[in-house]
Amino acid sequence: MDEFALIRHYFSSLTDNDASIVVGIGDDCAQVRVPPDMDLVLSIDTLVEGTHFLAGTDPAHIASRLMGAAVSDLAAMGAQPAWFTLALTLPRADEAWLAAFAAALGHCARRFGIRLVGGDTTRGPLTLSVQVQGLVPAGRGLHRRGAAVGDLVCVSGTLGDSRAGLDIQLRPEVQPDPLPASSQVLLQRFFAPEPRLSTGLLIADYASSCIDISDGLLADLGHILRASDVGARIERRQLPLSKALRAYTDIEQARDWALSGGEDFELCFTVPAARWDALCAQLELHGVPLCCVGEILPASAGLRLEDGGVQLAESTQGGGYNHFAQGDDA
Amino acid sequence: MDEFALIRHYFSSLTDNDASIVVGIGDDCAQVRVPPDMDLVLSIDTLVEGTHFLAGTDPAHIASRLMGAAVSDLAAMGAQPAWFTLALTLPRADEAWLAAFAAALGHCARRFGIRLVGGDTTRGPLTLSVQVQGLVPAGRGLHRRGAAVGDLVCVSGTLGDSRAGLDIQLRPEVQPDPLPASSQVLLQRFFAPEPRLSTGLLIADYASSCIDISDGLLADLGHILRASDVGARIERRQLPLSKALRAYTDIEQARDWALSGGEDFELCFTVPAARWDALCAQLELHGVPLCCVGEILPASAGLRLEDGGVQLAESTQGGGYNHFAQGDDA
Repeated sequence: MDEFALIRHYFSSLTDNDASIVVGIGDDCAQVRVPPDMDLVLSIDTLVEGTHFLAGTDPAHIASRLMGAAVSDLAAMGAQPAWFTLALTLPRADEAWLAAFAAALGHCARRFGIRLVGGDTTRGPLTLSVQVQGLVPAGRGLHRRGAAVGDLVCVSGTLGDSRAGLDIQLRPEVQPDPLPASSQVLLQRFFAPEPRLSTGLLIADYASSCIDISDGLLADLGHILRASDVGARIERRQLPLSKALRAYTDIEQARDWALSGGEDFELCFTVPAARWDALCAQLELHGVPLCCVGEILPASAGLRLEDGGVQLAESTQGGGYNHFAQGDDA
Repeated sequence: MDEFALIRHYFSSLTDNDASIVVGIGDDCAQVRVPPDMDLVLSIDTLVEGTHFLAGTDPAHIASRLMGAAVSDLAAMGAQPAWFTLALTLPRADEAWLAAFAAALGHCARRFGIRLVGGDTTRGPLTLSVQVQGLVPAGRGLHRRGAAVGDLVCVSGTLGDSRAGLDIQLRPEVQPDPLPASSQVLLQRFFAPEPRLSTGLLIADYASSCIDISDGLLADLGHILRASDVGARIERRQLPLSKALRAYTDIEQARDWALSGGEDFELCFTVPAARWDALCAQLELHGVPLCCVGEILPASAGLRLEDGGVQLAESTQGGGYNHFAQGDDA
């Protein structure tokens, strides 16, 4: 089997027939059917070796970060995942690498309910772009615009775990050997982010705005504030921290990572205060906790960080990563 | 303006509001509306510096090749272009490069009637992935499968020009100075391929199968033959050659390039013989000539190349580029 046949072999094993797919992999384009009462949502994300992950990173980890981050954009729109395409640039067709990458990609795709319908494979420095397509009820969906003064600022799950997972990799010399189970949890949060798909669907009828947390809570909430032309205050003591994060580091570091660590792929959203109780009533059977961390203020307030009600800092920019270094949606 | 703001500035200038775009650039996903009687078609294509173009290539040429090749996949499906996204990996944010690239991208987008709705910009070796979305009437569209024994094998425009344009660049020392106008035409065919959108729409009601010629006529016809489980014969003397190509090289070289040069981005399609006259009657006001170059045979015939009716070669693989070196749709 030549190099290219090898690649086709691994990816064609990921295809999965479905009534929505008129033509899948193997034509000039894929052809799919969008139900008449739905809008299409779409987002493209790229990971580059040396920028987003180190040379030699386990291909299964690359696949799970790629898919987790991309599908998280669908969650943030309150969308149902539908189809994806993959543009894979590889220095060479290494069979062991391809087998491990394709297996992990297929595992994520099945778990997130999204189907591979096309792709392009080229030779060059290792670069992966995935485009995800999803569906929202026509004219609906969650957006960054829409937050209003008085709305509650809420987040799903726990924050800062992924940043701790990065710290474990950056400072292997200070880690206990073997790693405790709690540190394994933090690594898992870094390598295999879990897009909050069911949470996005659950909050879609209640939230006034939403974004996924890829650059850190402060930076991503900043996007909501700019799109909605409002300000906000965040209460540092309300930030949801996991037991694993608390076991790994002190409370100050944990809160800093929760504010600006990035890559948590939790949802940050706003809810009109009068709708909060109704949303909470829906949470009983929902596996992901939701937590209020602040409140929307007029735009003139900027983004205020408070600690026990005492103002610590004010910013109209937020924190987070340097965008160009880490990538950003245009 | 920081590096990333610079990039956003250039690409946001390309956005273009349209009733089909519910949410464009600047949210977690774009949100678009597919008309209820249409199917969505989509295709992703990548260009890599050092693989598909040399370092230092004019960014306007990169943009026009990227868009021409990608939109050609829509033409081959008989689709109307709708929206595109761009994943751009750049070693640094060079303002002159970005300005020239964005201007050429915008020019192509307007000419092809396709709108930028999202993207991702990352730092790394220069790599560009574009995903194009188009629309076809539900359940219709042109596909690779569908060719039947007795159908005519047809092509649009002229073949081999792009390969001659490559030759001009590969052998600058043998070119007249200044380059004659005919050689400028060949360079233009290489740098700014013209997707045959109107031809794809015109033939959609007549053709039994279609593909765009990216790897060379023999290689791409080979994809139709495999997808349709048929064979074919091609008459070498029927290949449509441009005056510019005939001025550049001898007839034997011209025919070889027409058969396997690649990157012509013309359409290769099959038409039931009984439909050919009806199709020709539609051509009067159509600016692109169509030409019969052969006939579909049973699968057992393979792909036969004839010269004045005398069989030259037989292949079940076809010619063309090495796929992994040049990229290929999965």
